Amino acid sequence: MSSEMKEKCGVFGIFNHPQAADLTYYGLHALQHRGQESAGIAVSDGKRLKHHHGMGLVNQAFSRDILDKMDGNMAIGHVRYSTSGESLLKNAQPLVFNYSKGDLAVAHNGNLVNARIERDVLQQQGSIFQTTTDTEVIAHLIARSKKQRFEHAAPDILSRIDGSFALVIMTENQLLIALDRHGLRPLSLGKIGDDAIVASSETCAFNAVGAKFWRDVEPGEWILINENGIETGRFAKKEEMSLCSFEFVYFARPDSVIRGRSVLSIRKELGETLAKEHPVEADVVVAVPESSIPSALGYAHQLDIPYEMGLIKNPYAGRSFIEPTQELRELAVRLKLSAVEEIIEGKRVVLIDDSIVRGTTIKRIVKLIQDAGAKEVHVRISSPMVRNPCFYGVDMPTKEEMLANRHEQEQAMGETIGADSLAFLSTDGLLEAVNIDLAETNQHCIACFSGAYPTHLYLD
Amino acid sequence: MSSEMKEKCGVFGIFNHPQAADLTYYGLHALQHRGQESAGIAVSDGKRLKHHHGMGLVNQAFSRDILDKMDGNMAIGHVRYSTSGESLLKNAQPLVFNYSKGDLAVAHNGNLVNARIERDVLQQQGSIFQTTTDTEVIAHLIARSKKQRFEHAAPDILSRIDGSFALVIMTENQLLIALDRHGLRPLSLGKIGDDAIVASSETCAFNAVGAKFWRDVEPGEWILINENGIETGRFAKKEEMSLCSFEFVYFARPDSVIRGRSVLSIRKELGETLAKEHPVEADVVVAVPESSIPSALGYAHQLDIPYEMGLIKNPYAGRSFIEPTQELRELAVRLKLSAVEEIIEGKRVVLIDDSIVRGTTIKRIVKLIQDAGAKEVHVRISSPMVRNPCFYGVDMPTKEEMLANRHEQEQAMGETIGADSLAFLSTDGLLEAVNIDLAETNQHCIACFSGAYPTHLYLD
Amino acid sequence: MSSEMKEKCGVFGIFNHPQAADLTYYGLHALQHRGQESAGIAVSDGKRLKHHHGMGLVNQAFSRDILDKMDGNMAIGHVRYSTSGESLLKNAQPLVFNYSKGDLAVAHNGNLVNARIERDVLQQQGSIFQTTTDTEVIAHLIARSKKQRFEHAAPDILSRIDGSFALVIMTENQLLIALDRHGLRPLSLGKIGDDAIVASSETCAFNAVGAKFWRDVEPGEWILINENGIETGRFAKKEEMSLCSFEFVYFARPDSVIRGRSVLSIRKELGETLAKEHPVEADVVVAVPESSIPSALGYAHQLDIPYEMGLIKNPYAGRSFIEPTQELRELAVRLKLSAVEEIIEGKRVVLIDDSIVRGTTIKRIVKLIQDAGAKEVHVRISSPMVRNPCFYGVDMPTKEEMLANRHEQEQAMGETIGADSLAFLSTDGLLEAVNIDLAETNQHCIACFSGAYPTHLYLD
Amino acid sequence: MSSEMKEKCGVFGIFNHPQAADLTYYGLHALQHRGQESAGIAVSDGKRLKHHHGMGLVNQAFSRDILDKMDGNMAIGHVRYSTSGESLLKNAQPLVFNYSKGDLAVAHNGNLVNARIERDVLQQQGSIFQTTTDTEVIAHLIARSKKQRFEHAAPDILSRIDGSFALVIMTENQLLIALDRHGLRPLSLGKIGDDAIVASSETCAFNAVGAKFWRDVEPGEWILINENGIETGRFAKKEEMSLCSFEFVYFARPDSVIRGRSVLSIRKELGETLAKEHPVEADVVVAVPESSIPSALGYAHQLDIPYEMGLIKNPYAGRSFIEPTQELRELAVRLKLSAVEEIIEGKRVVLIDDSIVRGTTIKRIVKLIQDAGAKEVHVRISSPMVRNPCFYGVDMPTKEEMLANRHEQEQAMGETIGADSLAFLSTDGLLEAVNIDLAETNQHCIACFSGAYPTHLYLD
Repeated sequence: MSSEMKEKCGVFGIFNHPQAADLTYYGLHALQHRGQESAGIAVSDGKRLKHHHGMGLVNQAFSRDILDKMDGNMAIGHVRYSTSGESLLKNAQPLVFNYSKGDLAVAHNGNLVNARIERDVLQQQGSIFQTTTDTEVIAHLIARSKKQRFEHAAPDILSRIDGSFALVIMTENQLLIALDRHGLRPLSLGKIGDDAIVASSETCAFNAVGAKFWRDVEPGEWILINENGIETGRFAKKEEMSLCSFEFVYFARPDSVIRGRSVLSIRKELGETLAKEHPVEADVVVAVPESSIPSALGYAHQLDIPYEMGLIKNPYAGRSFIEPTQELRELAVRLKLSAVEEIIEGKRVVLIDDSIVRGTTIKRIVKLIQDAGAKEVHVRISSPMVRNPCFYGVDMPTKEEMLANRHEQEQAMGETIGADSLAFLSTDGLLEAVNIDLAETNQHCIACFSGAYPTHLYLD
Repeated sequence: MSSEMKEKCGVFGIFNHPQAADLTYYGLHALQHRGQESAGIAVSDGKRLKHHHGMGLVNQAFSRDILDKMDGNMAIGHVRYSTSGESLLKNAQPLVFNYSKGDLAVAHNGNLVNARIERDVLQQQGSIFQTTTDTEVIAHLIARSKKQRFEHAAPDILSRIDGSFALVIMTENQLLIALDRHGLRPLSLGKIGDDAIVASSETCAFNAVGAKFWRDVEPGEWILINENGIETGRFAKKEEMSLCSFEFVYFARPDSVIRGRSVLSIRKELGETLAKEHPVEADVVVAVPESSIPSALGYAHQLDIPYEMGLIKNPYAGRSFIEPTQELRELAVRLKLSAVEEIIEGKRVVLIDDSIVRGTTIKRIVKLIQDAGAKEVHVRISSPMVRNPCFYGVDMPTKEEMLANRHEQEQAMGETIGADSLAFLSTDGLLEAVNIDLAETNQHCIACFSGAYPTHLYLD
Repeated sequence: MSSEMKEKCGVFGIFNHPQAADLTYYGLHALQHRGQESAGIAVSDGKRLKHHHGMGLVNQAFSRDILDKMDGNMAIGHVRYSTSGESLLKNAQPLVFNYSKGDLAVAHNGNLVNARIERDVLQQQGSIFQTTTDTEVIAHLIARSKKQRFEHAAPDILSRIDGSFALVIMTENQLLIALDRHGLRPLSLGKIGDDAIVASSETCAFNAVGAKFWRDVEPGEWILINENGIETGRFAKKEEMSLCSFEFVYFARPDSVIRGRSVLSIRKELGETLAKEHPVEADVVVAVPESSIPSALGYAHQLDIPYEMGLIKNPYAGRSFIEPTQELRELAVRLKLSAVEEIIEGKRVVLIDDSIVRGTTIKRIVKLIQDAGAKEVHVRISSPMVRNPCFYGVDMPTKEEMLANRHEQEQAMGETIGADSLAFLSTDGLLEAVNIDLAETNQHCIACFSGAYPTHLYLD
Repeated sequence: MSSEMKEKCGVFGIFNHPQAADLTYYGLHALQHRGQESAGIAVSDGKRLKHHHGMGLVNQAFSRDILDKMDGNMAIGHVRYSTSGESLLKNAQPLVFNYSKGDLAVAHNGNLVNARIERDVLQQQGSIFQTTTDTEVIAHLIARSKKQRFEHAAPDILSRIDGSFALVIMTENQLLIALDRHGLRPLSLGKIGDDAIVASSETCAFNAVGAKFWRDVEPGEWILINENGIETGRFAKKEEMSLCSFEFVYFARPDSVIRGRSVLSIRKELGETLAKEHPVEADVVVAVPESSIPSALGYAHQLDIPYEMGLIKNPYAGRSFIEPTQELRELAVRLKLSAVEEIIEGKRVVLIDDSIVRGTTIKRIVKLIQDAGAKEVHVRISSPMVRNPCFYGVDMPTKEEMLANRHEQEQAMGETIGADSLAFLSTDGLLEAVNIDLAETNQHCIACFSGAYPTHLYLD
């Protein structure tokens, strides 16, 4: 379920708008689900960069006073989630540097698989690092490029980095947008009126800033925007895209559109396919709110079983609060969710969740529903079994912690979580719903399910 | 819609549990939707009271350190919303007093219609007030009672106060729970195991603390709990109940049960009745999230039109954030809600909202849906027109600000909000859904719709 | 030394000045040494009172925003120190009440010896208390007075309270200033130009707000200021004054003038008298900074021994900081004070301190000076031995903790603190310096030295 | 006076002590007067560095929790004052880097005159900068050194930087201490017991941590401390020292010893010399507290005029507080200082201050003394006229703002500040007091008085 895998970042950029910093703030607010640990904005007035970072949500990191000082008509922003334990603010992005050609701000969503190698090379050449982020590698490569001008150097170095990256880079007067050759993370372009261009990890931010969707960034493509207009190019030959399929399953906001597909519709379709693959005789379909509601609607519609709001989430459950002491530990799930007895009691319930990683949460939810009087609880998961770690910027439990690696069969997993039955969407079902020609294997990255990674991993 | 009317408070109490303060914290967390401005807990170890108040949500007002100091096996708590501009912390409840018999903590949800009169009488007798709350009146009346013992004095003075009150009052070793003679606000009792008794404004808090529902408090009833056991009595003869119907329409959490009725089911029924009264030919039913989803499901089910998630709420929309400047004002609604074009475009949309007070928000939402390409937008409201102020503890706009008082007919109102049609649930439809014998007029309070108040108002 | 006895409060009031709240803020800043725990201001615009309290220093409790909202041309303020462990903000003064005649704000420096008795009587009559302060008793007495008008009631009730009190009380349009019948605490009046009147615990605040000293308030006197002008009267017959002699020894700022005497000059004279009583052959006179510098100058001048800055205080020593752990405990005094070796080494040092209560600090300082190479260390104290608790608003150790109660003779005390000799100013020497006809015994309160209290103590 | 010139930094280091971080905290507390804007500590447990920075005073930047996590037996620390307007926390020191040989922390007091040039060279070679500090240049130079080992590289690069620097640099297991070739800033070594070595900008920190003074660091010297012991060397041939004379006049704490001279004694001698050069017939000598008290004592002693505490500083004046509004502007100086009328009235006053830069503050103080009734006010300054900017790390007004550059003669300056006479210590007088053979010109830096800078300035 939701809290067991975490997207690590979201990026936003805007060019040629008088309220550049304000709109970046709103864009980040729309992307907040992609990172809640820190937020940052860098802005340029054409001569120099100003930036500000803060811990927590965008609304905690920024105040009206701070935004008022950030004048300029270009800006980039970043929201971040991280597991690293210390110096968190220092690692907050956009990172801002001063180098021989001027100022440079870099915002990065993703993870470079060859960062450690490039970092070693740079340090051997005398570079020093102030953060533990991959992102600092990118800035060093630009600064050390043989190419004299940023507009030549930046595209040039992109071919040296591998892994996942949705990048927005800003100098005093230029904006560079780029997507890794595998297209692992989403990245789209929009327009506000005729003049202003925006880039965002997800299209939901376009709605928030009053922009219209223009087009997606292509894998291996860079886009340079400056006063001369827009220039595009490729730093890698066109390969098959490997867009993270988990964006559709869980990460992206349902109102975003990725590669032409509405996330909401895909999720409904995942539910319908799940119903075809794993139907069950039941009285009611219930979703683990909020993320699983669309697939629950799809599942219910496919089998013509009533969808009911059998689980209600405390609207304040997202806020951090004092965790129950040992004596009250059993309350943990009840503080977030409650089961509606009137709907559950005496019923055969299909419980839809978007994914299972560790399985600890779903086990508690099954118990909650049983305590509310369900006659049967059949768990259906709208994605395949998660068995493998992600190397592209998603925070996950270790392989040993994953439920699917602790059991050989679905039945044993179902017993572990206490359900009457348990079934997962098949990989083919997933790929079908996300609308892929099954003859082509790697239009989406399904490595966490299949173990087949689209890049070299440089693991030693 | 949601933000235009505000429930002012929630109360919680617990007797005979070793984690009394912790459980009160979790109970308040479950009642957080009833008040977000301040939170407070008073606890007793049998000898004296300790208390703590703080501004903001329960998780902002309390820390582990603070809770750790609140030892004792009885506690009461309160969450509060208020419009008064100053000294907010001072008015935070539970109010705690020291009087001739010892300590006294009072938590009150509601509004006393004769508070001004009683306050004047008390001040003429030499009482001084440190807060502007009605609640302080209650403490003074207890302190000045001729009855020597708290257990006699407290029930005695309840007959002197009129209006709405769900009360929990605590001394060093006794807990008194009482509900006004009209039963205007909800108040229920639960049990944890065999020994501990809890009281709460809503049953959703029972789930959060692992309690089982026991029974509702009756109008005009008081319940005294101490080491001798539980004693109950009446301070007013049994009258017809006038429970606030807006609790069902909007205030209460859907997973609460009030007077034996699940709030979720009632809301669905409101939607079904609305569909019968005001059907429309349409392609899709869309809810204003979150509160209107159940009635939208009911409406869709009744007319067999698909329910779709056409409006998505930013999951972080509830947090305060920097409001758009004048130039960006049009973004205000877009930062909270977005319309999913794939679902809306070219469709005839029925938009369900739970209520209209001012009408400013719904107007913006209609526009949002039209911008997403809707062919038609038909607004259906699952409650009658709000025309009258509440004197029982609900914060509302003035009569002049209410949309229903600025127009004679639904059609004109519909034009004002830009919809193709607009219709409200009838008062009879509302009463039917909340399951009332229509021969009896005052089993629920519908004063904000009808203007017929169940109590004297003491307006001058 | 300084940190062992603590004055509990300072009060300030102003009438008829357009910047009343701002000037009260500056007045409290000047009185900050009298209380660092909380600060508060109440202001009146002629119709109603507004007030604000905050924890910590005046600059921490107030912001420009808060002051800007406090419009009005009358105000009272209070700084407070307290030992009570909880609900500190609630007890912060001025306390503000609403009673039958309107609003009332009370700021009080001192301690009522009959507070407990009066509180019991009031509670028997039905009064309830929200604070644990004596000050709330005063408000209740005013509210319950038979006298109808504030200007009659307030002076009337003053005769019912005993102990120490420098009081400023404000209604919407009147200011009442009063001093207890013994004149235990200082209280003075000043004028700004022709129109505005100020009252303050110490005259140093007059300098800070640009006021000229007008006159002291007399023991047993009340002064009522309103739009009709200034009215004065007595609530007790003129008795001999018993002004706290410790104000001269330590509490008051050296630039204050009390009862016509400059505190600075008195302290110098205390040093001169001490030199006459307890001369010593020495090379250098060193003060424990800051409070003992004037008496060290006097001592040095009297005996013609050079005064030198042999002890230097860290200018940031006043701020709270992380106390050394057990392993580093010996550093405690070194973090605050350091001895200048060049001055101390090989010298016979007279070390002047203003008082000894527990004796723990002076012991460490003696060691510090010995470690710096002093040949001899002779401690001279510019006040008599403290042997008795204060019941008039000064925080002190218990009798058992006082060094003077643990030893019979000065010699033994000197050995305890490790000095070569130790001597205290005599009570007669003190009274002479503070300029009292020794035939009259109670012109100053010397109870902490002598045990002769000027009031009844109501101890049981 | 004090607030017109600001020392920018203080550094501290410790090797081989189990409470390294705690002692660094106390050392920085003792050096707090050298920088109040931010504070930082880096600590090593032999394997890796941890660090923490915070804004404000040391006690605001650190908590017990933070210190408890900083385990290790080597640490360096820094307090900082800066005028730069943004990203202040980012520039807080010690700066910590990761480079090819491991971790590196750098704390620097001073200003490199060739930083801009070296930074340009480094950037041309591809280095990127994240701060605007000179200090980052030092780290880059070490990282790019041809010398493979830190212990060779660090001493090597010191010859490339010019200007003022008192440096402490730490790796995982080595501590390097170095002083610029001119010895512009003070830097001393001490020992705790036999094993632990400390370095500090001033010796006052040795007292605070229980260390004994060992010796001063020599100009052009480096000292490397690691498990093999202590190694020293020179990166520049021995030149005449040019120690900042303003350290004696104002910056250093009076209890510090610099180059064998007690700062307190030097200040007294400055007063005595001033008295010889510019005697005046007067009744009383008064100091501007705190910094001018020693020279006032010297002046008074030399002329046998009584020294009196005629000006008293509000003990809370150092805290930031709400500045008076325009209407109350005249109060500004009165909130910090007050004149004691009893001492001043009718007297001929000699007012001693340590320096005049802008002259705005002294003008207000002269007025304060005149308002208190002084018959005459003669201002005597214990340093020469400040006419030139400092390029070595002291924050000063512009040349145009300096009083000495706006007037040709002392008399005109005296009139400007409203005094009856004004005189400054001569440069020879200053040099004599700081004990210099006048035949040698550059044993102390007096550039701010004379304009003769000891280094090239690279101003181009």
